[in-house]
Amino acid sequence: MTTSPLPSLETFQNPKPDRDYLIRIRIPEFTCLCPKTGQPDFATLRLGYVPDHHCLELKALKLYIWSYRETGAYHEDITNRILDDVVTAIRPRFARIEARFNVRGGLYTTVIAHYQAPDWEAPPGLDLG
Amino acid sequence: MTTSPLPSLETFQNPKPDRDYLIRIRIPEFTCLCPKTGQPDFATLRLGYVPDHHCLELKALKLYIWSYRETGAYHEDITNRILDDVVTAIRPRFARIEARFNVRGGLYTTVIAHYQAPDWEAPPGLDLG
Amino acid sequence: MTTSPLPSLETFQNPKPDRDYLIRIRIPEFTCLCPKTGQPDFATLRLGYVPDHHCLELKALKLYIWSYRETGAYHEDITNRILDDVVTAIRPRFARIEARFNVRGGLYTTVIAHYQAPDWEAPPGLDLG
Amino acid sequence: MTTSPLPSLETFQNPKPDRDYLIRIRIPEFTCLCPKTGQPDFATLRLGYVPDHHCLELKALKLYIWSYRETGAYHEDITNRILDDVVTAIRPRFARIEARFNVRGGLYTTVIAHYQAPDWEAPPGLDLG
Amino acid sequence: MTTSPLPSLETFQNPKPDRDYLIRIRIPEFTCLCPKTGQPDFATLRLGYVPDHHCLELKALKLYIWSYRETGAYHEDITNRILDDVVTAIRPRFARIEARFNVRGGLYTTVIAHYQAPDWEAPPGLDLG
Amino acid sequence: MTTSPLPSLETFQNPKPDRDYLIRIRIPEFTCLCPKTGQPDFATLRLGYVPDHHCLELKALKLYIWSYRETGAYHEDITNRILDDVVTAIRPRFARIEARFNVRGGLYTTVIAHYQAPDWEAPPGLDLG
Amino acid sequence: MTTSPLPSLETFQNPKPDRDYLIRIRIPEFTCLCPKTGQPDFATLRLGYVPDHHCLELKALKLYIWSYRETGAYHEDITNRILDDVVTAIRPRFARIEARFNVRGGLYTTVIAHYQAPDWEAPPGLDLG
Amino acid sequence: MTTSPLPSLETFQNPKPDRDYLIRIRIPEFTCLCPKTGQPDFATLRLGYVPDHHCLELKALKLYIWSYRETGAYHEDITNRILDDVVTAIRPRFARIEARFNVRGGLYTTVIAHYQAPDWEAPPGLDLG
Amino acid sequence: MTTSPLPSLETFQNPKPDRDYLIRIRIPEFTCLCPKTGQPDFATLRLGYVPDHHCLELKALKLYIWSYRETGAYHEDITNRILDDVVTAIRPRFARIEARFNVRGGLYTTVIAHYQAPDWEAPPGLDLG
Amino acid sequence: MTTSPLPSLETFQNPKPDRDYLIRIRIPEFTCLCPKTGQPDFATLRLGYVPDHHCLELKALKLYIWSYRETGAYHEDITNRILDDVVTAIRPRFARIEARFNVRGGLYTTVIAHYQAPDWEAPPGLDLG
Repeated sequence: MTTSPLPSLETFQNPKPDRDYLIRIRIPEFTCLCPKTGQPDFATLRLGYVPDHHCLELKALKLYIWSYRETGAYHEDITNRILDDVVTAIRPRFARIEARFNVRGGLYTTVIAHYQAPDWEAPPGLDLG
Repeated sequence: MTTSPLPSLETFQNPKPDRDYLIRIRIPEFTCLCPKTGQPDFATLRLGYVPDHHCLELKALKLYIWSYRETGAYHEDITNRILDDVVTAIRPRFARIEARFNVRGGLYTTVIAHYQAPDWEAPPGLDLG
Repeated sequence: MTTSPLPSLETFQNPKPDRDYLIRIRIPEFTCLCPKTGQPDFATLRLGYVPDHHCLELKALKLYIWSYRETGAYHEDITNRILDDVVTAIRPRFARIEARFNVRGGLYTTVIAHYQAPDWEAPPGLDLG
Repeated sequence: MTTSPLPSLETFQNPKPDRDYLIRIRIPEFTCLCPKTGQPDFATLRLGYVPDHHCLELKALKLYIWSYRETGAYHEDITNRILDDVVTAIRPRFARIEARFNVRGGLYTTVIAHYQAPDWEAPPGLDLG
Repeated sequence: MTTSPLPSLETFQNPKPDRDYLIRIRIPEFTCLCPKTGQPDFATLRLGYVPDHHCLELKALKLYIWSYRETGAYHEDITNRILDDVVTAIRPRFARIEARFNVRGGLYTTVIAHYQAPDWEAPPGLDLG
Repeated sequence: MTTSPLPSLETFQNPKPDRDYLIRIRIPEFTCLCPKTGQPDFATLRLGYVPDHHCLELKALKLYIWSYRETGAYHEDITNRILDDVVTAIRPRFARIEARFNVRGGLYTTVIAHYQAPDWEAPPGLDLG
Repeated sequence: MTTSPLPSLETFQNPKPDRDYLIRIRIPEFTCLCPKTGQPDFATLRLGYVPDHHCLELKALKLYIWSYRETGAYHEDITNRILDDVVTAIRPRFARIEARFNVRGGLYTTVIAHYQAPDWEAPPGLDLG
Repeated sequence: MTTSPLPSLETFQNPKPDRDYLIRIRIPEFTCLCPKTGQPDFATLRLGYVPDHHCLELKALKLYIWSYRETGAYHEDITNRILDDVVTAIRPRFARIEARFNVRGGLYTTVIAHYQAPDWEAPPGLDLG
Repeated sequence: MTTSPLPSLETFQNPKPDRDYLIRIRIPEFTCLCPKTGQPDFATLRLGYVPDHHCLELKALKLYIWSYRETGAYHEDITNRILDDVVTAIRPRFARIEARFNVRGGLYTTVIAHYQAPDWEAPPGLDLG
Repeated sequence: MTTSPLPSLETFQNPKPDRDYLIRIRIPEFTCLCPKTGQPDFATLRLGYVPDHHCLELKALKLYIWSYRETGAYHEDITNRILDDVVTAIRPRFARIEARFNVRGGLYTTVIAHYQAPDWEAPPGLDLG
């Protein structure tokens, strides 16, 4: 598994910090390498988050995603790692990532992880799914 | 970002104020400009609300939506701003907006925000999603 | 808006009054007139109800629906009025109507209203949506 | 309405009685007769149940379903009757039937009924819908 | 029913044991034999689990699935047996299996079973369905 | 195979005999019996024809189709027989029938037959498929 | 069958008469009355034509379509009549109409008629379907 | 590659030999083994033919298909071999097979082969696709 | 109708001029203004062409498309005009444009025009649709 | 544009050279780099060919496709180049490639090229699309 530093996620000020609202980003062009065989893997990522003080800047997010192109990564590990990076970068109230990997060996694997700030609770009427 | 005043949202009397019911409006022809590059952005808006004393007049809503054609607007900001305008105009019991923007840089962004009147609670049997 | 009396909804005895169960009726051929312009409007209605002592007779329902063909009606008003007529006719434990109107001016409007008998609560396992 | 005795539903031992699990059976080939006109009706049935001591034997279920071919039956009545027969035959912890009838007179009718054993509650994580 | 020992499920260390997250695996190529007639049955399996200390190794899972090719198995029994094998192998916090069998005799059968560790509860924001 | 006489197909005058045009009728509620086992079969019929002097009357067609409910019929035979009956009844310029039978034994069978009047040729611009 | 004169189709000058090109108009809101029973019928019309000197003005076309609301009309007759009206109004090089009527008595009827000017032939590369 | 003799295809008399008509059979449950690795392969077969004197008996066809379960077979070879077997068994006027194999190594392979009797030509109006 | 000069289409050398091949570009974000009312219109364009010596440069095409944002344009006229501009810019062997406009007044209009170089003929095996 | 040698396509003997049949391979995981910006591009390739003496070996094809991961390539050029490589490797009777690239700048580009051996003609009944 390569360990070269990834481009950092950049942020901008949340324009409406007094409201709990959801931002969803679908990313169909994620690709990385299988750490065992070196062969390419492909996935569609679905990222959703409720911003606190900061939002994810989209251009930097795109470069961050592209940087996995030469990175070895297991399905379960990479999904959690991307979630961790998002949480570190923007300290959201809530964040969720769903990674649907392309079929390998007849199996279709999806990994879903989420983070919720300890002191935060979803308001009624906001569907986080 | 341009700041020209938008056409105002107009209202009419809620014909059934003693019932909590939901009005949903899908608006596939929303377009604005990217504040950074001046290039056009496109989105489908989904607006839902539970009226209190007033409903949104549809023709004025159409003109209000069209007025964004020459307006610079960030995804997160514009979604919250439209919700604020709706809340200001009709003081609803509940309102929700979902803005699905067209793909940019391989990323599909959706912003979802809602408002619930402080003294109001959804009755059982009414799905606000 | 015309006010001619509509054909009345007819009923029959609920064959299983000791059970809370749901009857759903989809009605894709609803058409009425715009009260402002006199131009035709079209909608698909979705009606659902939990009967108490009576059920809706389908042939009379069909005639009731057809009778709106020459009736002027606003979206929000007509949806609530049909719900009221159903509640008056069969006194259900629960009733819900969803009216999806065809696009007008680039906007797709849906109105959703429901009624729940004051002394009735949905049993676990019954999805009323 | 004909009253000839139907073939009986047969059962086999639940192979895992210590677990609450769900069995769903979709039956697209249900047909009966309209009691008023004698004309054929068609429906897709969706049956779901949580077995207690017994499961439904599929071949006998198929014959039971076929036996309605010459039976007069109203939509609401027949759905409840099939549910009653299932409950009588296997005494399940939970059972649900959904009957989607083909369009008649421009109306699409669906009837949904369920049964829950008095002393049973759905465990978390089991979606009965 | 044949009783030859199946290939064992293999595991690897959960890379993120301090987080409750979900792994879903869709398996469209499951086939076994009908114990009564010896004729082939086909199903699509959907397996989902929240790992505790271990995850399922995918290559071994594939071989485990393939091993049913010559095994006689009833729908209800086999679904519960696979769930049991998964629970035994990885002791998950939660596991769920859904087996959608191909049509037989005009009936489409699906069996859904799940397991939840006695001391574990789904955190808010994690949809296990 | 039963041989009881079927209700006859009725006709009306082609309102536009000087034009070659196509009438298509989709019939999703065809059911007959398997001549070997007596078990019900189901199919969706698609009938298309270019009328000459007569068109098929729809109500009589419906009764004709219903009459197969108690008739034993093999897939290949029944499709050709219905085509023959249509040709005999209305002497069309062209007729085509497609019968998509429900799955039996894991096999989905469709039979497609057509008739073209000896002295007739499809004009350019008319797709008979 | 009522015989009141319909609103006339209006035309405008073909802006590109030296090119054979196709204009397609889908009209999902066609409704007329059954001449036998007086009950409403509904259809989606698909009109396509290659203009010669004139095109169909859309607003007048809309009024022309609406005017059938109170007109009795058989499926086969009305389709040919609308085609005739279009041919009379704009003398096109080619015109085609497809009318998909809503289900009646379990039968879904579609009528397809076309007109081709005697001296005109479709150029290669233009699909008229 | 195993060479054990397969169950033979059985036939019955074509009930309408004086007409060129098409029989299509979709077979979603084809499975064989990879000759190199011994691992299972899966495909959906689509078989279509115009019978001459004989038709394919469906039950024998089902057994013939099942017999490949333990047979090693390359995609290209097996498709042509099944077509050859069909041609040998029923000497059709036309036959076509399309085999859509499940994804392997990220590639989705389909093989399409057909046979046409030397002295036979498709009549106008019969689409063999 | 405004007449301001549009940004010009730019070209690059066809990398394979000795082969007839097709380039298709789908453009879902076309918007212009109605010349009568000034209200926005929206369309999805589908452009296809067989290049001769030059291909369309995509970035310039994007700017060309965006330039219609403030341009008044009738459906039929604009489609032919864009085709003319493409033909002028790259002198293709073949070009085709299909413009699907959003619904207006309940009518969905599509305009399809094509150009074929006088001395060019489509080779067998190339579907230009 | 990088010019490093790609892995070669490998072949095996056509098992049925006396028949014209079609092999289709869908490849959803093609990715290369934009020669101008170095940013990744993605496409789904659809390759179809009629083999003469040789077929494409799938594992080598997979490696050949993967090798473009680090290669700069324009849409039009790369599609033709892959077709050329296939033609060189197996000298087919017919080959066709369709490359559907992911959206860039709001434009969805597809390139379709084909090759037909000079002395070969498609037999009736074989659809090469």
